[in-house]
Order: sequence, then structure tokens, then C-alpha cells
Amino acid sequence: MAKAEKNALYDMGGKIAASLASNPNMGLDSLRLLLEDLQSLSAEPTDVTYEEVDAGGIHAIWARPTGAAKDRVIVYTHGGGFVTNSAASHRKVAAHLAKQAGVLALVIDYRLAPENPFPAQIEDAIKVHEWLRKQGFKPEATAHAGDSAGGNLALSSALKMRELKMPLPAAIVTFSPWLDMESNGKSFQTNAESDVFIRRETSVMMAGLYVGSASRTNPLANPLHADLKGLPPLFVAVGDAEVLEDDARQIVEKARAAGVDATLEFGPGQQHVYPFMAGRSRAADTTLANAGKWLRRQLKVG
Amino acid sequence: MAKAEKNALYDMGGKIAASLASNPNMGLDSLRLLLEDLQSLSAEPTDVTYEEVDAGGIHAIWARPTGAAKDRVIVYTHGGGFVTNSAASHRKVAAHLAKQAGVLALVIDYRLAPENPFPAQIEDAIKVHEWLRKQGFKPEATAHAGDSAGGNLALSSALKMRELKMPLPAAIVTFSPWLDMESNGKSFQTNAESDVFIRRETSVMMAGLYVGSASRTNPLANPLHADLKGLPPLFVAVGDAEVLEDDARQIVEKARAAGVDATLEFGPGQQHVYPFMAGRSRAADTTLANAGKWLRRQLKVG
Repeated sequence: MAKAEKNALYDMGGKIAASLASNPNMGLDSLRLLLEDLQSLSAEPTDVTYEEVDAGGIHAIWARPTGAAKDRVIVYTHGGGFVTNSAASHRKVAAHLAKQAGVLALVIDYRLAPENPFPAQIEDAIKVHEWLRKQGFKPEATAHAGDSAGGNLALSSALKMRELKMPLPAAIVTFSPWLDMESNGKSFQTNAESDVFIRRETSVMMAGLYVGSASRTNPLANPLHADLKGLPPLFVAVGDAEVLEDDARQIVEKARAAGVDATLEFGPGQQHVYPFMAGRSRAADTTLANAGKWLRRQLKVG
Repeated sequence: MAKAEKNALYDMGGKIAASLASNPNMGLDSLRLLLEDLQSLSAEPTDVTYEEVDAGGIHAIWARPTGAAKDRVIVYTHGGGFVTNSAASHRKVAAHLAKQAGVLALVIDYRLAPENPFPAQIEDAIKVHEWLRKQGFKPEATAHAGDSAGGNLALSSALKMRELKMPLPAAIVTFSPWLDMESNGKSFQTNAESDVFIRRETSVMMAGLYVGSASRTNPLANPLHADLKGLPPLFVAVGDAEVLEDDARQIVEKARAAGVDATLEFGPGQQHVYPFMAGRSRAADTTLANAGKWLRRQLKVG
């Protein structure tokens, strides 16, 4: 078992988990307010400007680092179990990644479950990619990044685009992707004590809200069940204190087996979506710098 | 009675008020999460960069509009009854004001009551002004702006600075200032139906948390009881649908009687701190433009 690093994410993750445990019937409004507070973990990145935009019917926030390549873009899909969080709560972490990559980020407010269950989120992400095409951004200059549920969405929307014979983005980055809608990973047991934030019950509950009446092994809901052949290069980072460690390990193994160029990075002692600590922890900044460097190569940033 | 304009602030104010009414013993943590959501009302201002800073021991966020005068600054103190909210929740509205004024804004995280009751907030605001002096910002190039409780703090910290014989800022802007810690204003009755957000009980409850063991007529807690002579020019905006309309009217009357140059602007049909709707309502944008224009004159911008 990994030794968990104690920091602000550790404290907040613990607080959120305790809040959920003591109030398992917490309403959606309260759950959303509680999770939105995760935004406070990220420092404001310097030298980035923002602009809200209607990206083909999907509300989004542009993050534009000073000096970024204006023809290269990361579509960023936030985590939160498909049920909570927003472009606003993930603006800063997405902007940190964009800054490291030297490109723009478009942080999108896809529709949330359970009001809009699977596959509404995939439809929205694809609309955004289509809108970017119309704005002149080329597929080879476009990446898709996301954390947790947003990491799932980065993969599933690429799978859906492949099915639709649309051009795929040139790279996918996921931080602590939440993929297994059956919540079967053995790290749910092996990291149960080091992960202060996510518990198997949370994953099971959220998966139910997302998947709705679909199957928990539908490859578009659960990319661990997908044929990953032909996906673009993949960068995955995960904390080795996380119960979701196995989701990350498994997708990288399966991607490699399918011939996809896949990179796996571990945050030592880190909790779920540790890049949230951008500007405030060495582990977060190291992974964001590595993901940024990797994206510069994939997107051929000058 | 004013006819209230229905917009997103109207809806959220009503939701917050209903939440408080149905759960009068809501814990501080829940109250803070609930109020933090006000941030979602403001659009991202374009062409502004941010940086977090330790401003003499007080955490703060710099908002730097592109092209702003780098030697002129607004200290911005957020509202939230001295008990809730943060620099993060008020970053956008402060940045909108700074952009209109063509200057920098420093949005500060003063300590919150009841953990830190009156006058901790005034001490923190004064520390920030002292820190700005050390950074080379001149008093005549410094304004202090704030909304609701933060508007009270803009006035009370100037009063305290006068007492300490410190140089005062050159201008004060307050949006819907919350001043009367006795909650005596007649608009608590006359606007009770048009104000969907604030109720007299809320004001009484918050005042108790802020003032603590001090008197509710202490001039530094309740600037309506202060001698305002020698204060800098004052700009006050208030919604005419607000129960706090009288706080605004009274401070302007008293300021004028004390020889202070005071401007009063009404937001027709507007709720508490309607500039929160920056970028999303005409009333908010009009008042922010007017306050910005007024600040340009006071700070001799460009």
C-alpha cells in the first residue's frame, strides 16, 4: 500500500468523503456545491486570459495562456462523476495544463447526469470537436484532456468519433480516469486505506447515475471494454494512493496491446486527480509539466 | 415597491433564501458552500490575468486587465456577511470593475467571522493598504471597493485609517453596502416583497456573527454611526428592489452632510449586489461602467 501524502487535497478529499458517508442521501444540489469547492485547491495560473463562449451549443470557457500557439487547442472535460463540477471548477487546472503545453484550452460544460445520462456527455463533447473544426482548428492540432469522469469522456468521445468516421484528436491526456463502471478494480481493496477521497460505494453510486439504463460494460460508457485500436497517443497519470489506480493501469495495458502509444505516470502517494493541486504541490506541477511536454510533442508546438 | 427584474441573480437569491429558511440551523460549512455559488453569476471578463499573492500576510488575488495603469489599484473586499465568500467568489466582479476603471484590482481574503469577529476584518484590510504602500502604490492612486459586507469594510477601514492618521485611499466604491448592524432600515419592510434574497432575519443573524461582543452601533462596525468627515469621494450603487436600499441612501445622505462627495446610483428592479451579473445583465454592466468611469476620474487614469 502506498503511503499517502498529506496536503490540501488529502484534507478536502477526506472531508468530502466524510460528508458523503454521514449523509448518504445527500441531495444533488448539496453534492454539487460540495464538489465545486475542489476548485479552491488549484492556484490561479499566471498569464492566462479567459473568455466564455457558446461552442456549438455547449457553454465553454476559453483559457488562453500568453504566447500560446493560437491554432492548437486542448478540449478539456472536467471530472466529477458526470454528475457534479463544471468548467468553472476546472478552469484553473485546465489552464495550467494549457500553459505547460503552450496551447489554448477550451473547458466545456457538457450536460450532467442523472438529468442527462449517458451518452449525452459524449454527444456534447463531439459537438465541441465539430465546432472547433468549423473554427479552423485541425484535428492534428487538437488534443482532448480530462480528469476522472472527464478522462473517461476523452476516451469515449474519441471512440464514438472513430465509429462515426470523424477525424480523431491527435492526443488524449487523462488524469485519474474513472473508467470501470462495474467498479471491479482490485485497487478498490489494495488502496482502500491510502485513498481518503473515493470509496467503492461512491463509484457504484455515480456509475448508476451516469449509465442509467445502459449496460455498465457498454464500451462507450466503460472504455475498458472497448477495442482501442486506432486511438491517438495516450498520456495517463494516476496517484499510487488511489482506489482508481487499476483503471489507469488497465487502460494503458489495453491501449498498448491495441498498438496505441500509451504513457503511464504515477503520482507517488497522491490522491484522486492530484493535478488539482496545480501551483501548490510538487507532484501536481511535475505531472502537469510532463503532460504539457508530451502534448507539445504530439501537437508539434514550435 | 419596485418591480423586481427576474434574472439569474433573482433565481439564485430566491434559492439561497429558501434554503436558509428551510434550514435555519444550517452549519457554517454548508452556508459557505451555498453562498460561494454566487460566483457562477458573473461572466469571465476577457483580457484579464490573475496572480495569487501574500499581501502582507493576507491571501489575495491580483486581477490585471490588459493595458491597465500598473501604478493604480482597487483594493476589493468581497461581501458575504463577513462570514462567507472569498476572493475566489468575487474575482470576476472585481476584475470587471478594474477593467472598466483601467486599473489593477487586489481581491483580498480577509479573515471571516465568527471564527474571527469584528474588527479582524478591518485589521486585515489595513494590513493590505500598508503592504500596497510598501509596494510603491500611492494613496492617491489607490481606491477601495467592496460589495455588501465588503462595502461596509471599505468604509470602516478608511475610518480606522483616519483614526490611525494613515493616508486614506483616494476613492471608495460600494455596491449594496451592508452597514446597519441593528437592521433598522425601513426598506426591510418596504422592499420585503421585491427582495427575494435578503431577509431581516438574515441580516440580524449575520450581524451577530460579525459584531460578536462589540456594540451594534460601534461606528467601525456600523458606519451609519460614524462621523464621515474627511472620507474620500464615495460611489454607492444599490438595487431599488433591495431591503438594504436604506443602508445605501443613509450613508450617502450622511456623507454629503459631512462634506463628502457622494454619488448614489440605483439599479432599477435590481437585487442585492446586482453587479454580480457582470457580463450578463444590462443593469450590472451599466453600474460597473459608471463606477469605472467615476474611478478613472478619482484616480486620474490616463
